[in-house]
Amino acid sequence: MTTLLALYRRPEGGDEALATFLRRYHVEHLPLVAATPGLRSTRVQRVDQALGGDTDLVMITAMEFDDRAALDAGLVSDAMRQAGRILREIAPGLSTLLVLEDPAAPGES
Amino acid sequence: MTTLLALYRRPEGGDEALATFLRRYHVEHLPLVAATPGLRSTRVQRVDQALGGDTDLVMITAMEFDDRAALDAGLVSDAMRQAGRILREIAPGLSTLLVLEDPAAPGES
Repeated sequence: MTTLLALYRRPEGGDEALATFLRRYHVEHLPLVAATPGLRSTRVQRVDQALGGDTDLVMITAMEFDDRAALDAGLVSDAMRQAGRILREIAPGLSTLLVLEDPAAPGES
Repeated sequence: MTTLLALYRRPEGGDEALATFLRRYHVEHLPLVAATPGLRSTRVQRVDQALGGDTDLVMITAMEFDDRAALDAGLVSDAMRQAGRILREIAPGLSTLLVLEDPAAPGES
């Protein structure tokens, strides 16, 4: 599997700005993400605490694809492009998108 | 579920230092993590790329527990304390530990 992991930092503007971001994320962004071809699952989790320190992260979303080719195809789909446009509007500069890979299974190259 | 998400940054010292860290992480740290009471699953993934930017993260590990109480019990177990000691030795200051929570299901408080 290939995971697209989105890390979201807290917006400026206090709890009200955070609530607005989270509402628009769920209402406007996530339905478009859900329409991405090749997307196998989506898991949205809130960051409750950083053990032994502070963090500016408030939410992390894991989107699973069969492999890197499926992720790349999904990224250029209309659904994901629209989802990206909305994200840049509701949380400009507040997200980091990481591509994660599981270790190769024995016998795989 | 409650997730303990560990984010690991690249150690100084180039590819050799990274290889040493990864080897000791798998050989010394992970077996202790696996012995943590209440741990339901562990998923280790390497960070392959940051889309649209750079990242100093090289690996992310997700450890799943039934709930926050199970995580808290696991954190104070002998296995997790030993795992933490080894981690501070092989990757001092290079990890961030986040507690993630799934949204409450309907009917849950």
